[in-house]
Amino acid sequence: MSFVYNADPERGQEWERLFALHAPDMAFHHWPDYGDPLDVRYLGTWAPIEELERFSNLEVIFSLGAGVDQFDLDALPHHVPLVRMQEPGIVATMQAYVAMAVLGLHRDLLSYIAQQRERVWKTWRVRPAAQRCVGILGLGQLGAAVAQHLVGLGFSCRGWSRTARELPGVECYAGEAALEDFLAGSDILVCLLPLTDHTRGILDARLFAQLPRGASLVNVGRGAHLVDRDLFSALDSGQLSAAVLDVFAPEPPPADHPLWHHPRVLLTPHVASMTQPESAVMMLLDNIARHQAGHEMMGVVDRKRGY
Amino acid sequence: MSFVYNADPERGQEWERLFALHAPDMAFHHWPDYGDPLDVRYLGTWAPIEELERFSNLEVIFSLGAGVDQFDLDALPHHVPLVRMQEPGIVATMQAYVAMAVLGLHRDLLSYIAQQRERVWKTWRVRPAAQRCVGILGLGQLGAAVAQHLVGLGFSCRGWSRTARELPGVECYAGEAALEDFLAGSDILVCLLPLTDHTRGILDARLFAQLPRGASLVNVGRGAHLVDRDLFSALDSGQLSAAVLDVFAPEPPPADHPLWHHPRVLLTPHVASMTQPESAVMMLLDNIARHQAGHEMMGVVDRKRGY
Repeated sequence: MSFVYNADPERGQEWERLFALHAPDMAFHHWPDYGDPLDVRYLGTWAPIEELERFSNLEVIFSLGAGVDQFDLDALPHHVPLVRMQEPGIVATMQAYVAMAVLGLHRDLLSYIAQQRERVWKTWRVRPAAQRCVGILGLGQLGAAVAQHLVGLGFSCRGWSRTARELPGVECYAGEAALEDFLAGSDILVCLLPLTDHTRGILDARLFAQLPRGASLVNVGRGAHLVDRDLFSALDSGQLSAAVLDVFAPEPPPADHPLWHHPRVLLTPHVASMTQPESAVMMLLDNIARHQAGHEMMGVVDRKRGY
Repeated sequence: MSFVYNADPERGQEWERLFALHAPDMAFHHWPDYGDPLDVRYLGTWAPIEELERFSNLEVIFSLGAGVDQFDLDALPHHVPLVRMQEPGIVATMQAYVAMAVLGLHRDLLSYIAQQRERVWKTWRVRPAAQRCVGILGLGQLGAAVAQHLVGLGFSCRGWSRTARELPGVECYAGEAALEDFLAGSDILVCLLPLTDHTRGILDARLFAQLPRGASLVNVGRGAHLVDRDLFSALDSGQLSAAVLDVFAPEPPPADHPLWHHPRVLLTPHVASMTQPESAVMMLLDNIARHQAGHEMMGVVDRKRGY
């Protein structure tokens, strides 16, 4: 019985050490050296893997990231459940990144970065966090945790999801019909939606036009949520004042892409959240134990819904 | 009986409106139009004012910032108390700024800003906040509030002060003898000391050498706490990895100062904390009421101690 790991090799060394400690009976292999394919019961992977039928005893595929849009869900073996990574390390690192991005936008950080380059000493009025409303698009595990974290930082906070949610201190909106009202009060919009056919390209000119003038954007969902040219138009017209982007389509953006040098865009290389080996291995082993005991696992993907 | 305001004129308009609402019997003047000098009982000022003896009925000088190092304490009339501004707006905006700076340093923001300029896509390993120790130099009202805020963000947190303090969740060090131990564990050092003869130039080569290699610095105290050339040496040698600076000596730094374009320095123009008119006026009027009733005011400066 073996587990095959296919993601960042440096962190893979930590995974192997943690498996040896907490699941010494499970053989651990680093892709592409997967050993006897018939021994492979569990696969942990960030990227899709071809020819999965060679692993005829495969029981579970674990995505090692929070999203599963990198997989072609129809092409995966239907009898093998696909499980998203839901672990406290992903949540905590995402909360910290969004806090940094929102505080940066709230406190005019992009202006100060540009001013430093130009040697300009100019102050922008500071307002209390409570006077700034952050809108979270998507209230799944990550969106809900981020919203709660921002409430703790003193921001006024609202959230939107397809189906109704309730979160303490967060004004919750649900469904297409409520999107307009939600957007109208969001000074800083944070995208934490899953990427599906419903949400692809949702961050477009039409949506930006519904935000308050001068609003700003944090995209920590997926690059394909955003229509790049609509972002540039909105920044140029002043409808949007700034954007912090951690995800792109494709990644990395081409070297000649205007995103790299737009003065109102802060770009980071898909680092908002990162699976932390210690907590991720414990979560994954817990799911394996649930599976072996015939119980439901945490984070099983609904392939119709797409997340 | 009048109050004279001498600070940012835009916020002065809000002060006048708030005085009209909450203290309609007090005449409000904007410096330098102070009206009859004998009517002036209370002076609210950011900068020192010459020839204060012309206001022979002056009862209290209110500093409109958290610090009073801009004043020559010996030159101020000895019978007139000097009061620092201690209001929740200053505290909350400082907490938010330091959170932004610490999260930015924790998450390699200065590297990403430089990489974006160079069009480099390179990720840096994300670690949980609990594995990063933030050391706060100075545990006065601001330092203590900032430390508590950082604990809430999940950072490991320690603080140093001249006299012993106790703060929940913060490892507290006190006195010269404890400084070395405090520094040895501070991955990110935040300076929130008052500027006095004891603390001038405290952020120097000797102090930097006592921090863990690759530590980083946030200076939100005063520019004169920092020895600029020692900072550059420490950054160049790798002893320090980055600095976020909000204060300088002088302000602004000269146009040819290397601070402006150092890739490991993020510079903001003294905006970390800003008095918020609504809460500041309420605090000041409360102090005036205390003074008129013969009670002790909040934030009276001890001129021997210097803060």
